[in-house]
Amino acid sequence: MTEPVEFSLSCPIPQADYERILLAHGGGGRLMHELIERTIVPAFRNPFLDVRHDSAVCTVGGARFAFTTDGYVVRPLFFPGGDIGTLAVNGTVNDLAMCGARPLYLSASFILEEGLRVETLQQILASMRGAADAAGVQIVTGDTKVVDRGKGDGIFITTAGVGCIEHALAITPTSVRPGDSVLLSGDIGRHGMAIMAVREGLEFETTIQSDCAPLAGLVADLLSAGVAIHCLRDLTRGGLASALIEIAEAAKVHIHIREVAVPVGEEVRGACEILGFDPLYVANEGRLVCFVPAADGERALRIMQAHPLGKDAAIIGGALQNAARLVTLESQIGATRIVDMLSGEQLPRIC
Amino acid sequence: MTEPVEFSLSCPIPQADYERILLAHGGGGRLMHELIERTIVPAFRNPFLDVRHDSAVCTVGGARFAFTTDGYVVRPLFFPGGDIGTLAVNGTVNDLAMCGARPLYLSASFILEEGLRVETLQQILASMRGAADAAGVQIVTGDTKVVDRGKGDGIFITTAGVGCIEHALAITPTSVRPGDSVLLSGDIGRHGMAIMAVREGLEFETTIQSDCAPLAGLVADLLSAGVAIHCLRDLTRGGLASALIEIAEAAKVHIHIREVAVPVGEEVRGACEILGFDPLYVANEGRLVCFVPAADGERALRIMQAHPLGKDAAIIGGALQNAARLVTLESQIGATRIVDMLSGEQLPRIC
Repeated sequence: MTEPVEFSLSCPIPQADYERILLAHGGGGRLMHELIERTIVPAFRNPFLDVRHDSAVCTVGGARFAFTTDGYVVRPLFFPGGDIGTLAVNGTVNDLAMCGARPLYLSASFILEEGLRVETLQQILASMRGAADAAGVQIVTGDTKVVDRGKGDGIFITTAGVGCIEHALAITPTSVRPGDSVLLSGDIGRHGMAIMAVREGLEFETTIQSDCAPLAGLVADLLSAGVAIHCLRDLTRGGLASALIEIAEAAKVHIHIREVAVPVGEEVRGACEILGFDPLYVANEGRLVCFVPAADGERALRIMQAHPLGKDAAIIGGALQNAARLVTLESQIGATRIVDMLSGEQLPRIC
Repeated sequence: MTEPVEFSLSCPIPQADYERILLAHGGGGRLMHELIERTIVPAFRNPFLDVRHDSAVCTVGGARFAFTTDGYVVRPLFFPGGDIGTLAVNGTVNDLAMCGARPLYLSASFILEEGLRVETLQQILASMRGAADAAGVQIVTGDTKVVDRGKGDGIFITTAGVGCIEHALAITPTSVRPGDSVLLSGDIGRHGMAIMAVREGLEFETTIQSDCAPLAGLVADLLSAGVAIHCLRDLTRGGLASALIEIAEAAKVHIHIREVAVPVGEEVRGACEILGFDPLYVANEGRLVCFVPAADGERALRIMQAHPLGKDAAIIGGALQNAARLVTLESQIGATRIVDMLSGEQLPRIC
């Protein structure tokens, strides 16, 4: 690992039009981050939101549990490797798992557009049931609203989830310490490029399947082996780059990764080149990063590699002591550059 | 109370176009009921959903808690007495309270349409914070998605909620027993008619304010006084009539109410006459019905009347032993008629 050096932000943040919401406010980049930090979090300000984690860790009757929600607006509704239903279940399961919680119960709220085919709804419901069974969760409560034609887009799904926390660890960005190893659970960019291949009509040239999958089992294996996990984060909108930048900012550390260690499939790499995307920023729906003390790194890696969803896991870098809270990447040719958060988004409505 | 007589359904259910979702599938009437019963519940089938309650009652680490969700798509976003933000908080607080749970934590998921004014979002967030503070809950986790212009309608909000259950009662439709008294917490029809008055341009002729309010305090008063509550239900889409019909079906009882006992404000009655609505079916957002053993009826009534949100509470009828699981109403002139579930809806996008 190279020693930290002084950097300044290479790309200033463009001034946003803050009068109105832009599509880019949903993209997982700097604009979304600012909208959340400047508008939403201050309105609700409380210690739970201050943690800036995928789930809130709450207590009911003395029991610790994780609580989370996500809305899903993906287009197209069906894509190679999944659909909006599998996404809505796995996404919320994964947000719970990122606290080290065992996902138990999900809610499902549907906003249907007038004219949606009931058969389409049934297919999506069957996918949700299948994904819930695979993840070992139950969909226990729900709601259905219908909006007029042209005021929605087929179907939007919002799931919320509750999971129990059965360990004493504080798995959160602020637990990351200089010296920690950063593990990545598999190859990146598959979900985003599977969606883009369909949108751009490349689906006959590639067979990229979304990585959409529930990560709770992988996390449970690490926990039951006693790995002292400091932080977990699933790589959704904004990809690996945005996840690491958010963790570096919250943990007040410098994170350095080696590009050569980050697995990217050949087809994803090819599709990214054709469409002009950087795999570091492309959305995933079944990949996580895990921060552990360096002493636990190799053992954690072997545990991840023994799980079907972690077989391509790798140690991609580590956390360093540095006043600059940023992410740097050593490229394949040995140069080091700052990994900056994108302003808007690469991929609208990817989840 | 009159003796039960034999009835047949006076109004056959029209055949629905089940190929596609209709706006009426969201209205709280028979069509929505059928969509949920035939399509959604069978897909997810589990004992929690079989209870058909506003919230699921779950267990984490030995603690009993209630878990619920609701989506909000109301038009207009702002109306006399509230906005989509107050609705999104109070609606979920009320669903928790209907299990006798003490609401604790809420999630908030936003689907924003490109072009929404940020100032509008800020106003709604401030309303949510105010409503959360008033109800004693915290908004602890959230999500934000943006959809392209013309694929949403300004803002949709889905909240989920978790509350703790600190009593041993089974507050659920199946606990209703013949002989129970039915209490109504106040005058009906205000939310629906406040919205309709704005839509129809009647807002300068009337000053109808939505009844949007958190009902958890009223329920807590009943519980702490030791009232043996059998069932609670807040009167949202479909109004008092639909709530009672759903309870009669789930509890397998006949519910009989007296029209003269049901409080309806003069302005609501007038607006209903102008617009052709029956107040029994109009949506409320701060009213509940409560089923208690007849012996507890008068005491429960006094407790409700002592609370600001229950000052106009009344005993409106009771549950009877009868093979026919229906709701009957003794009209002001003494005639008895069946209260039937509407097929579609009176009021699209009322919440």
